[in-house]
Amino acid sequence: MSKVTTEAYVEGVLAGNRVMLARTITLVESNAQRHFEQAQAVLSHLLPHTGQSLRVGVTGVPGAGKSTLIETLGLKLVQAGHKVAVLAVDPTSSITKGSILGDKTRMEMLTREENAFVRPSPTGGMLGGVARKTRESILVCEAAGYDVILVETVGTGQSEITVRSMVDFFLLLLVPGAGDELQGIKKGVVEIADAILINKADGENKVRAEAARTEYNRALHYLTPAIEGWRPRAYTASALEDAGIDKIWSAIESFQEKMTESGAWQARRKAQLQEWLHTVIAEQLKQSFYAQPTVQAALPDLETAVRQGKLPPTTAALQLLQIYKTNQ
Amino acid sequence: MSKVTTEAYVEGVLAGNRVMLARTITLVESNAQRHFEQAQAVLSHLLPHTGQSLRVGVTGVPGAGKSTLIETLGLKLVQAGHKVAVLAVDPTSSITKGSILGDKTRMEMLTREENAFVRPSPTGGMLGGVARKTRESILVCEAAGYDVILVETVGTGQSEITVRSMVDFFLLLLVPGAGDELQGIKKGVVEIADAILINKADGENKVRAEAARTEYNRALHYLTPAIEGWRPRAYTASALEDAGIDKIWSAIESFQEKMTESGAWQARRKAQLQEWLHTVIAEQLKQSFYAQPTVQAALPDLETAVRQGKLPPTTAALQLLQIYKTNQ
Repeated sequence: MSKVTTEAYVEGVLAGNRVMLARTITLVESNAQRHFEQAQAVLSHLLPHTGQSLRVGVTGVPGAGKSTLIETLGLKLVQAGHKVAVLAVDPTSSITKGSILGDKTRMEMLTREENAFVRPSPTGGMLGGVARKTRESILVCEAAGYDVILVETVGTGQSEITVRSMVDFFLLLLVPGAGDELQGIKKGVVEIADAILINKADGENKVRAEAARTEYNRALHYLTPAIEGWRPRAYTASALEDAGIDKIWSAIESFQEKMTESGAWQARRKAQLQEWLHTVIAEQLKQSFYAQPTVQAALPDLETAVRQGKLPPTTAALQLLQIYKTNQ
Repeated sequence: MSKVTTEAYVEGVLAGNRVMLARTITLVESNAQRHFEQAQAVLSHLLPHTGQSLRVGVTGVPGAGKSTLIETLGLKLVQAGHKVAVLAVDPTSSITKGSILGDKTRMEMLTREENAFVRPSPTGGMLGGVARKTRESILVCEAAGYDVILVETVGTGQSEITVRSMVDFFLLLLVPGAGDELQGIKKGVVEIADAILINKADGENKVRAEAARTEYNRALHYLTPAIEGWRPRAYTASALEDAGIDKIWSAIESFQEKMTESGAWQARRKAQLQEWLHTVIAEQLKQSFYAQPTVQAALPDLETAVRQGKLPPTTAALQLLQIYKTNQ
């Protein structure tokens, strides 16, 4: 990366320059300390121009049709005059080198649109990892004028909770299946969704999808809503046949309207910012602890002793903390 | 507390002496550093004699009838030859001075039994707080020969997750109510339960309780089970009329049998010990961070700037971490 000034990044993003937007996100995603510091400076300048978008998280197991849905929805939104950015959070990407959005042939229609910006998942690394990078990329896209941010993630449990903490609306994508409909969806994910979308409700799946929708609505009735004043519901859609997409988007817009009116929207955003601060602190504290060579050397034996019931966990923890403190 | 030797604590507990059991738990619960160190020494000696009990967590909103259920169940178990210990985790107890098990008149029948031991919730404080104290009290009770440990908690979300991480079986107590049956039950709690018990299924509630049971079984069908090989189900009971209590206990015993056979039981216990180790580490790291006066002085302004969108959360976090490091 050639040396670009902080001003150049800021001005490029604010001008909506797509090349500079991409480069700024690359800066944000960098694991190098000097890039990190410049990224924080850029973000500080962009911050007053952020926050105006509707941030939507989309999750679902592989094969649920996330990409097709996001592309169909994205194209509709662009046609309706929106500027749409698609980001991804893939906790497995550092291993698989990008299992979502990594395939260049995916979302190629949307990618060609002038008012759309599609960005694959960043790889992990230091300084808050993938979550920080995606959170900050959302801000950069907003400063560049994007008013709808779609954040895609896979159904692995932890990644949903992370994405939940950075979006306004969280959509769980499911497919109608035989037996347990939630096969593969990790615990707690249904309970953090603002809506469930039964996708692939086309052809011979249609009847099963409608049955699943009814069943989910019943199950949702028994769960505490994720946000005060909004009762999550199940919908059906076919991204392939372009059916039901308008309806789910109407639901999202209605959510935004109601929550803005009640103040729950603003409250959730503020709470998310505060939570983000403390998450970074907790992550950094843990990172510097587990990265210390003396801790790394002592951990395996102590962990084994604890697992075998030979050492009380608190005793082992305090030994490790003492080692850490002494060698800091 | 007069000076008792570590050997006296250990021998007293292993002999099943109730006075020494109570004193050892008091030692474990103490916030004083010298008590803490002795408690860890006592625990190390007791550890080989722990682990043989069936640990059951019971949660439910206030009014769900937790105490009555636990007393009825406890008396039955004692009559069947078990030694039963009842512990409590109450995250609010440091404020309310014990909102659960704090009332001396509660569980008075069970308290009078020679083979029962009832202990109210410890107050918070340093060194891992309430969770560590309860986890270690479980071990002490086991070393004293108690083979059933019932851990009671209130429905506040975080406390359930904590209790879930220290028990073998997690029971969610509900009452049949009009409208949303889960009023007051926090998000995710249904999904971590191994069974749901609709309590107070007596008199005019009976029909509603049966209806609720059917509905919950349907909802549970759509959630991923908390443990491989066990499908959580809903049951009805009346602690008042002593109906359904035997059935839920049979379910718990059947759970223990199946899970022991598959090895899931042992695996969960080992995972819990390991998790406990890392939880204590994370808590201690955070505690020493947030307890530092310079961090405490800087935090409010930085938090406000973050909430108002004036400072990127990562920037604020790194400033605080720098302050912490410099003043350590």
